[in-house]
Amino acid sequence: MVSATTLKEFESVWPRIVGDLENHCKQYKLPQQSLDWFVKSLNYNTVGGKCNRGMSVVDTSSILLDKTLDPASEEYFQAALLGWMIELLQAFFLVSDDIMDSSKTRRGSPCWYLAPKVGMIAINDSFMLDASIYVLLKKHFRQHPSYIDMVELFHETTFQTELGQCCDLLTAPEDHVDLDNFSLEKFTFIVIFKTAYYSFYLPVALALYYIGAASPENLQTCLDILIPMGEYFQAQDDYLDAFADPEVLGKIGTDIMDNKCSWLINQALKKVNPEQRKLLEENYGQKDAAKEAKVKELYHELKLQEFYQQWEEERVADLKAKIDKIDESKGLKKSVFEAFLKKIYKRSK
Amino acid sequence: MVSATTLKEFESVWPRIVGDLENHCKQYKLPQQSLDWFVKSLNYNTVGGKCNRGMSVVDTSSILLDKTLDPASEEYFQAALLGWMIELLQAFFLVSDDIMDSSKTRRGSPCWYLAPKVGMIAINDSFMLDASIYVLLKKHFRQHPSYIDMVELFHETTFQTELGQCCDLLTAPEDHVDLDNFSLEKFTFIVIFKTAYYSFYLPVALALYYIGAASPENLQTCLDILIPMGEYFQAQDDYLDAFADPEVLGKIGTDIMDNKCSWLINQALKKVNPEQRKLLEENYGQKDAAKEAKVKELYHELKLQEFYQQWEEERVADLKAKIDKIDESKGLKKSVFEAFLKKIYKRSK
Repeated sequence: MVSATTLKEFESVWPRIVGDLENHCKQYKLPQQSLDWFVKSLNYNTVGGKCNRGMSVVDTSSILLDKTLDPASEEYFQAALLGWMIELLQAFFLVSDDIMDSSKTRRGSPCWYLAPKVGMIAINDSFMLDASIYVLLKKHFRQHPSYIDMVELFHETTFQTELGQCCDLLTAPEDHVDLDNFSLEKFTFIVIFKTAYYSFYLPVALALYYIGAASPENLQTCLDILIPMGEYFQAQDDYLDAFADPEVLGKIGTDIMDNKCSWLINQALKKVNPEQRKLLEENYGQKDAAKEAKVKELYHELKLQEFYQQWEEERVADLKAKIDKIDESKGLKKSVFEAFLKKIYKRSK
Repeated sequence: MVSATTLKEFESVWPRIVGDLENHCKQYKLPQQSLDWFVKSLNYNTVGGKCNRGMSVVDTSSILLDKTLDPASEEYFQAALLGWMIELLQAFFLVSDDIMDSSKTRRGSPCWYLAPKVGMIAINDSFMLDASIYVLLKKHFRQHPSYIDMVELFHETTFQTELGQCCDLLTAPEDHVDLDNFSLEKFTFIVIFKTAYYSFYLPVALALYYIGAASPENLQTCLDILIPMGEYFQAQDDYLDAFADPEVLGKIGTDIMDNKCSWLINQALKKVNPEQRKLLEENYGQKDAAKEAKVKELYHELKLQEFYQQWEEERVADLKAKIDKIDESKGLKKSVFEAFLKKIYKRSK
């Protein structure tokens, strides 16, 4: 058994990455004021999360190579660097999503666009987080046999996530409730494109390219398992938003008030009679605790909690069956996917 | 002599490009509402400008190949497609710049973020304009020997432009005047990075890659001529903003009121005595016509008009000397640069 990396180990390579980006800018003779600004944005927006996505590049590489990577080695650095690129991609999305959603805080601090003197400059800062990915890929992987594949993978994943965000913004605007605009088809598109590709498929695909095992078959197997796993993860997230104990979850769910196109509302819409539908029309997506309570009451009436739990068991059984069928002689390993599933199944936060 | 392409010819290939992007999204099963939105954003934001940058990829390719490209040919389409990618890159910048600058109109219509129902969704739309470049590059140039070079060129140019924008936003915020923050060094950085790379170097470099003549020497020659030409172009733009007849220019210059880090204010700061400096401190960067008039009066006192005209002659002579030294046996041609210079020299709008 190889052991999983820790957040401390993963974060220990970050300063070298910032140094690389600083040196790249210095070569352009970027004025100091702008360089300081860029470094501040990099640190503020990329560091401080759980780094699950980034660390899973390291863990997947370890499992596939069947050895624990020494955090001081170049091999660890390169896998972690690919992981940090996912964190940069996520930072690019989060900085801009927070503006689009008028969010107030992120990871316990003010959102970057609300930090002193930032404002709409945050838009350009988000671009620079994204551009950093390709500076780093070129610097460290130009000679890698899969360099262009990694570049294309980041391009495609970025576009997919943007399409998911586009659909989400159009389907569930915060200020205009229209349940006719929701559908399980749109829910599924949003979940797969906005979350599953970059959070589940991207880390494993990058690890496969990194270790040189990214055959079309292996990539397809990853898609077949990780995209449904991402769907399951998001449904669970939506379930926890309404039904988890806020003390345990660490936040108070706001999906109902925020007019989110969530798994629960879409399942509810499939089950309601005309009267119940009317109740949803009148109470969903409004910043009013009493109305939110009415929606939750209907969720209970419709037995969505039990329905979710049964649905979860089916999805997990399905995923386990797929994992079981993996032919380990081709470079992939079941434990890659088991590690992902273990982190998700029956989580309470 | 090959003949230059027309805007009508160049625009005739656009529908095919939109079709390619639509098909790409359909393959992802993007819901129709989102597809319609994306197509609307593509048309609204990319078409309707003068397309000088895009068309110069076609014109440069024609000159280098020494034949007029038939607008119905695949050769024309590919050169024009590369040109449209520059227009997409510019659309990405303009949509987001307009939000960052709180602009009201663009090309005679409301800025995209001010169009009905758009708002901050425009941020994600700008991302999708950028991502479209790589979708198109992969679809049409994956087999081209310079595919990865073109991808890297777009990455580098994008990052350079973002660094220029970062420096510009920090140097000349509209709401805080501090002339100590200006310098010719920063002016030069902003001009080269925010404008010259993508407007002057990128079209010619793409044409060189396209026709297979992008040797390191040829690319370096392009940089040596086109970056100073971009600097000259922007200084001229700043000069026209203050001194051109608004009737001829087609707009009323607002650089002084907008606290722009322009060529004129930086030259003025080098020439002023302490008293004149005080006048600038008190009157620059404020939305007040009387104050603006005082700054312009000082520009006249400092004889900036005559200074610019002399400076222009020197820069143009310098550019002509560099163009004259080009060794045409290596695939480059003097007329590429002469065509650029001709469009700029002594322009009045």
